[in-house]
Parts: sequence; structure tokens; C-alpha cells
Amino acid sequence: MNVRLHSIVTMVDGELINGESVGNPDSLCSGAFPLGDESDGQITMLDDPRRAQQLAHSDAVAVVTSVRLESIPMAQIVVANTHEAFSKIVSHFRPPLSCELPSIGVDLEANVAKSAHVHPSAIVGRGVTIGERTRIMPGVVIMPGCVIGCDCVLYPNVTLYQHTQIGDRCVLHAGVILGANGFGYRQENGRHIPTAQLGFVQIDSDVELGAGVMVDRATYGRTRIGEGTKIDNQVMIGHNCRIGRHNLLCSQVGIAGSCTTGDYVVLAGQVGLKDHVNLGDRTIIGAQAGVMNDCAGDQVYLGSPATPQREQMQIMAVERKLPELRRELKTLRRDVDQIVKQNPKSAAATKTKAA
Amino acid sequence: MNVRLHSIVTMVDGELINGESVGNPDSLCSGAFPLGDESDGQITMLDDPRRAQQLAHSDAVAVVTSVRLESIPMAQIVVANTHEAFSKIVSHFRPPLSCELPSIGVDLEANVAKSAHVHPSAIVGRGVTIGERTRIMPGVVIMPGCVIGCDCVLYPNVTLYQHTQIGDRCVLHAGVILGANGFGYRQENGRHIPTAQLGFVQIDSDVELGAGVMVDRATYGRTRIGEGTKIDNQVMIGHNCRIGRHNLLCSQVGIAGSCTTGDYVVLAGQVGLKDHVNLGDRTIIGAQAGVMNDCAGDQVYLGSPATPQREQMQIMAVERKLPELRRELKTLRRDVDQIVKQNPKSAAATKTKAA
Amino acid sequence: MNVRLHSIVTMVDGELINGESVGNPDSLCSGAFPLGDESDGQITMLDDPRRAQQLAHSDAVAVVTSVRLESIPMAQIVVANTHEAFSKIVSHFRPPLSCELPSIGVDLEANVAKSAHVHPSAIVGRGVTIGERTRIMPGVVIMPGCVIGCDCVLYPNVTLYQHTQIGDRCVLHAGVILGANGFGYRQENGRHIPTAQLGFVQIDSDVELGAGVMVDRATYGRTRIGEGTKIDNQVMIGHNCRIGRHNLLCSQVGIAGSCTTGDYVVLAGQVGLKDHVNLGDRTIIGAQAGVMNDCAGDQVYLGSPATPQREQMQIMAVERKLPELRRELKTLRRDVDQIVKQNPKSAAATKTKAA
Repeated sequence: MNVRLHSIVTMVDGELINGESVGNPDSLCSGAFPLGDESDGQITMLDDPRRAQQLAHSDAVAVVTSVRLESIPMAQIVVANTHEAFSKIVSHFRPPLSCELPSIGVDLEANVAKSAHVHPSAIVGRGVTIGERTRIMPGVVIMPGCVIGCDCVLYPNVTLYQHTQIGDRCVLHAGVILGANGFGYRQENGRHIPTAQLGFVQIDSDVELGAGVMVDRATYGRTRIGEGTKIDNQVMIGHNCRIGRHNLLCSQVGIAGSCTTGDYVVLAGQVGLKDHVNLGDRTIIGAQAGVMNDCAGDQVYLGSPATPQREQMQIMAVERKLPELRRELKTLRRDVDQIVKQNPKSAAATKTKAA
Repeated sequence: MNVRLHSIVTMVDGELINGESVGNPDSLCSGAFPLGDESDGQITMLDDPRRAQQLAHSDAVAVVTSVRLESIPMAQIVVANTHEAFSKIVSHFRPPLSCELPSIGVDLEANVAKSAHVHPSAIVGRGVTIGERTRIMPGVVIMPGCVIGCDCVLYPNVTLYQHTQIGDRCVLHAGVILGANGFGYRQENGRHIPTAQLGFVQIDSDVELGAGVMVDRATYGRTRIGEGTKIDNQVMIGHNCRIGRHNLLCSQVGIAGSCTTGDYVVLAGQVGLKDHVNLGDRTIIGAQAGVMNDCAGDQVYLGSPATPQREQMQIMAVERKLPELRRELKTLRRDVDQIVKQNPKSAAATKTKAA
Repeated sequence: MNVRLHSIVTMVDGELINGESVGNPDSLCSGAFPLGDESDGQITMLDDPRRAQQLAHSDAVAVVTSVRLESIPMAQIVVANTHEAFSKIVSHFRPPLSCELPSIGVDLEANVAKSAHVHPSAIVGRGVTIGERTRIMPGVVIMPGCVIGCDCVLYPNVTLYQHTQIGDRCVLHAGVILGANGFGYRQENGRHIPTAQLGFVQIDSDVELGAGVMVDRATYGRTRIGEGTKIDNQVMIGHNCRIGRHNLLCSQVGIAGSCTTGDYVVLAGQVGLKDHVNLGDRTIIGAQAGVMNDCAGDQVYLGSPATPQREQMQIMAVERKLPELRRELKTLRRDVDQIVKQNPKSAAATKTKAA
């Protein structure tokens, strides 16, 4: 679906965006994704004008912003409330789908390949596409608008929320849940009101998701798991994360919202990542570590807060000797007191600084 | 169901309680809940006589106790084994229900509102009530005796055990499991025997439970999630907990049995609470922290064991410098040894204390 | 099924093992299990020749090895690639089963006891055995080759992968998943290739598994949960683990591959075990601890890395006083500097070591 910028600026589906357009109003827009997730020809959003320099490398055709920006390479839609306007634009390009499902089996408007096998107890919604030789086991529920590639296996009781996209040769073990709402709320009159949950989950090819793995949908764009990545049981990945290619995420890892990992990253069991953390290629994080800050690649980090291995090992070595250190400190104090006692001049000095 | 005290004291459903009654035997009792969970007109239990002062503020009409208590404001049922007797009384008021379920769809003795939508693959047991406009998705299993309010959404493959109660406008994401047995055992001849699991789970209105959230049933009364509280994926809440209103519990939080939280409490990802811990209103606990003791409200706590933020930050700052501290300590020791060597009098002094 | 050694050595199901046989080629072999998991009359495997002394106590009739071993009490099958050969042999004795399932209900070739109750929405595969009075609730999926004992309860939406074995009187709460693939990969041309996942899960009698518990299948043999052990919600147990009898594993515990625990072990909430860790009988591990090394039995361990309680308590006590220690150290430094200043001879000494 291609839409001209000027028609978006004035009105989306009958709802006034009420924006001011800067740049060519005839530009064609093909979709709307947040910055970093957008492609050529799409509209993106800048919610913090201080990060305007990030637009320099964007192929977006236009940006939604609350202040008019100088020297950026695309058109602008200047609005009062960027998130409100961008929500409307995203919904225009990818209208939210209901979770309406057929009473039994596969919806008539789903598109299942001949060689695919869908168990009769699975429920497949409208507009779903399932590729060749993919096998859907009992109790799986696939909501409207999902796309699943070829040669995948979905084990029993997997749930895919609307718009989930799965590549080829993916294995989703029993109990996997993809696309539930991200954990985002704003407070209003003392109540937590959910923020926009208009995005979806994208699993690239050759990914294996262990039993009970859960990945939340993105706010506007995609929460993405890169090609060839393998994820162990009970891992949780928050909204807007971009997990790189060929990662290994061990059991019970928890990744908060908007994190990114490079390629060949390894997270050992029960590791936690704070939101908005970025890990470089081939980062390795030791079991139970808590990552609070970005980590450069090609390094091992341990502990909570996660620290380069060598440094953390030194810290831990001393920690184990803390009772001893304390005793040494006490002995030293006693010895020094004794010296001072035997050398009154020193004692006086430490008191008056001008004996 | 109202029952006179004297009939409970002697016999419950044909089983002898064999208690001694103190107070008006004609008092009417309307239910049985543990202390702190009981309302006006109900029977409660005191299993530790040292906490008898907690009865002063109770509206219970009677208390089950193993010793006769003085100056308490309600009748007493004095028995040899309080837990055994209270189990029988609780079961009398809320008889355990089997998990028998219809072969398909909704039991004829369930009460589903006209405007509710129950997917044909969901299984709804006897005596279940489902409110107006509530939507039950495929694969959901609702055991006998559950009550679900209006405008709720239960996503696929949710399981509700017997007697679960859900308020209005609640969202239960895929894979939520409410009311499984609490993790309580007593050892007998080297085997773990499950203790009473007669209670249920109560979710108040406007609560959102993320994918895979699990809340266990209480021992006698209710494990309760307060109004407006939002819980992220894969959180586990143990039996007898009372979570306050408008809490935010992030992903993979684990709360052991019998904890309470005030209102507007925030627990970051992977936080763990020891059993019987109480958190005051607006307590904030940082990611991965382990809470061992009660926390006063309006404060931030970090670390394991969880410690007020300011204090914990100071500890962590020194921890990072431990290798340096150790080197400083070694240098000091060397310097002091040198001083002593140069001042034999001091040296002698530190040895003999009376040179 | 009994097979003569010489027929295995040359060829398994038409695939050449190409091994050299040492010992009696007419020995009868009844199965193939990895070392430590094997019984009398079975074939086992030694992938590290340095551990050959472990064979001394084995009742195996033959061992697959890459080097010819001296003075061991069984026959040998010497091959180029032990894992490749052993995979073929294991598959010969226990051929991998497809996850093909009946369209509805119980497969005609399943063997369900008369008094068992299987809900019509449950799916039970070929060759499954279900014992007397066992109750299978809605949405449960039991793949081919599983064996379930008597008087068990499988709550809704439980999934059992192929060959899972369950003893008598076991309770599996909602959402339990047994037998998903272990998390084992080898890298090949930059891609993670799954290693052999030919084993299964064995749950002994009187075990209770909480909601959402997941146990992965073993590489070749069994991941085993011992008799009478009770496991709380959301616990994850990796492939090849052997959990002892009458253990108590609290919520959100994570156990990496190939760990063993003795009898009466207790792991508190959110504990993590590194792979290949062994815990002795009656070991107790405190909440959130991370176990990196074997633990002797009859002891309590705390912290990460887990440390005997007494030692860890001392370390933690000093940790809390670190800011104070640092101040004391600074004061000492100042005092010593002052002494040196007042005693130039000492000062010179510390510099030159020969004033």
C-alpha cells in the first residue's frame, strides 16, 4: 500500500493527524516503522529531537517529529504529539486485527500450503499463511495475519498473536507464546493505562525456540529474533528487542524491552538484561549476570552488574577473602595505635597537625 | 450458608471436630478464612497463640485455637489440632470440587452471559459464571466453581483451577495458570505429604496478567492480586500472597508464599521475595534483587539481600574497588612493618605491650 | 530386543558402524545407555579415554570407544567417531518415533486402562500406555511411545514428547512440558547444528511437578526425576540431569545439563546450577544462589558462587560494612603517613630499604 505524504499529513482513516508537512507532499510512503527498524520509502518517528543526527543514515521518506528539524535528508510531519500521530499512521498501514478465530480448524481465508500438516485441533485465523511442509501440532492457536514459512514445526499448545512472522525451518517447542502485549503503561489518575501495542514479532529463518519461550510484540514495529539463533526453555524477550543472528540464549534468560544483541552472542542461564542495553558481536555473558550497560563485543562479562571477566574475577577473589581482610585491617589499626602510643610526638601530630 | 457455632463445634459433615466452645453457641458463621483474610461473621484460625493480639482488630465471629484465650472479642473453638479442625471447617463452607469437566464446551450448569463469547474448543466446568462481553479463546480450561466478571479477555490455553475468581476488565494472556496447588509439604516417614490446599485465587478488577503468569491457590483462603495491578510474562506468585493495588511486577519475578505488597509497588525483572515478606506502599525493588526482610514503603531497594538504594550503591562502589583496597592494605602493612623495624621500641611494644 | 555384539559392530539397520570388535562377538546386548545410566547387559559409551576407570564398576556388556582399552571388564567396539556410532546403536534399540498423532482422541494402538479417564480433547499417540485410574485432562498431548503409570493426574495442556515415562501416583500440573529437545548444538560453518536428542524423560513414582515445569530429554539415555521428589512452578531441568529422591525444588529453579542431586536435596527459589554439578544427599541451597561446583551433602550453601553457609554469612557481613572498611583504611593511611612524616628515618627507610 503506497500513500502520498500529503494525504497522511491531513488525515488518516478519517482521523485528523493535524500535522504540518515539510518537504515534497507527493512523496510515496509504503509503511511506518520506528527509527532503526525502518526501510527505504517508509515513514519513521523521532520522539527525542536531541537524537536528530540518527536520521542522517535513514532511508525513510519522512519523519514524524514535534519540532521542525534542519538539514535532515527526508520530509517531515510536524505534529503536537509524536506518539499519538505515529500510532495513527502505523495503524493506517497495518490495521490492528481482531483475535476472532474460526470455531474449528483453519479459517476459509487462510492460505495453507498443500504439503503443510495442520492438526485438526489447531485453530488458524483469517489471513494466515503457512508454508510448504510445515507441521502444526495439536492445540496450536494462530491468530489472524500470521505468516509462517516452510519446513517449520510448531509443537503442541503454541500460541501466535496477530501478525507474527516466522521464517523457514524454525522449530517452536511446546508452549511457546509469541506476540503478547509488551509491558508498557503510563499512569493516569493513579491507574496504569497500556501504551500502544501495534507491532508484532518476527522470527527469522533457522531459529529454534525452546519450550515455554515468550517474545512480546513491539510497540510500533517488530521484536525480532535473528537468523539461526537458538533459544532454550523459559526465556523471556521483551518488546522492541532485536536479537542478532546465531545467538545462543540459555534457559530462563530475561531480556527487558528495546535491547539489541549482535551476532554470535551467548547468554548463559538466568542472565538478565536491563532495558535498552546493547551487546556487541560475540559478547558472552556468564550465568545469572545482570547487564546494566552496553557491552563491547568479543568479551566475556560476569556478575551483577556485569563486568569484564578479568576484572570481575579479581573482585570475586577479594570478596571471598573479605573476613580475612577485615582481620588484617584490625591488626593494622592496633599496631598503628601501639606505634603512636610509643611515639607521643606522632600521636600529637596526628591530632594537631602542628605539634 | 450460615451455620450456628455449636453445630460446627461438635461435628462438620459427619466428621467430629471435637472442640470445646467458648462464647455464644448460637452465633451465626458465614464462612471460614485465615486471619487477615477474614470478614465480618466468619470463623478464623490462630495457629500461634503468641499472636493472639492480632485478634483484637478482627471482625471474625469465632476463632479456632489450641489454647483457651483471654480477653478476645469473639467466640472460641478450642481444639487439639488447629489446622486439622480448620481444614474441616473450611471444607464445610467451601466443599472441594472435583475437576470433572464436560466432554466438550460449556457445562449445562455453567452460567455464561449472553454477550460473552466462549470459543467452542474451550472447556467450561459446572457452576462457572462468565460475565457480559467476556471473551474466552481456544484451548482455555475453566474448572468448576470459577467466577469471571465482565469485559475480560482470556487468551488461548489459559487454565483456571477450581474456585478461581476474576473481576471485571481483566486480561489474562496465553498460558496463564491460576490456582494450581501451593508448594507446601510436611515430611512423614521420609516422604513429602502435601498440606491442605483448600483455598483459591482471586484476581481483582482491571488486572492484566502476562503470558505464562502463574498464581497458586491459598492454603485456606485466597491468594489475591489487587485491583489495577499489571504483571509481566513468566511471573510466579506463591500461595497465600496478597499483592496490593496498582503494582507493576516485571518479567520473571518470583514471590514465595504468604508475602504481601502495598499499593503502587514496583518489582523489576527477576526479583525474588522470600516467603512472609511484606513490602510497604510504593516500594520499588531493583532488578534481580533478593528480598529477605520487610521493606518500608516509599523507598528503592537494590541487591541481594535487598538493601536501601543509597546504602547499596555505596557498598557496590567499594566492591568494584576491592582489588585496589587489597593492594592499599598490603602497602600499609609493609609500611607499618618498616616503621616497626626502624623503631625497635615500637616493635617490642607491639609484642610485649610493656617494653 | 537382544542383539549379538558382532551384528552391531558391523552394521546397524543397514548403516555401517565400521567398528572393530574386542571381546566375545556373541555377547547379547539388550539396549544402549550412556555411562552411569546403563544396566546389566547393555552397551555403553566412553567418549573420553581418560575416564576409562569409570568402566570398572559398570555392568555393561560392551563399550563404544575410540581407542582400544586395556583391562576393562567388558567387550569393546572400537570406532573412529564414538558419538556417531553410539547414536546409531541407540537409535537401533530405541528407534526415534515421529510425532504423528491421531486426528482426535486416543490412537487405536494406544493402551489405555479401563479405569483411566482421558478427556476427549486430549490427544494420545500410538503405542502410549496409560495405567489404571489415571486422569488426563483437556488439552493434554501425549506423543507416541509414552508410558504413564497408575493413579496419575495430568492437568490441562500438559505436553509429553515421545518416549516419556511416568511412574505411579504422579501429579503433573497445567502446562508441564516433558521431553523437549535438550539445548545442545555444535557449530559448523558458522551455524548451530543440533546434536543428538535420542533420549527421553523418566519421572519416577510419587513425583509432583508444578505448573509450567519443563524437563528436557536426554542426549542418549534418560533425564530422570527420582521417586517422591516435589517440584514447584516454572522450574527448568536440562538434559541428562539425574534428580534424586524426595528432593524439594522451589519455584523458578534452573538446572543446566548433566547435573545430579542426591536424596532429600532442597533448592530454594530461583537457584541456578551450572552444568555437570553434583550435589550430595541432603544438600540445601539458599534462594537465588548460583552453584558452580560440586557440593558435599548435609550442608547449606548460599550466594553466587554458592559457598558453605557459615563462610558466606561472614563474607556477607563484611560486605555490608565495606564503606566503613574503606573509611578505616583511609584513616589508617593518613595516620601512617603522619607517623612517617614525624619520623624521617622511617620515611627514608620505606623508600630506600637501607637508610
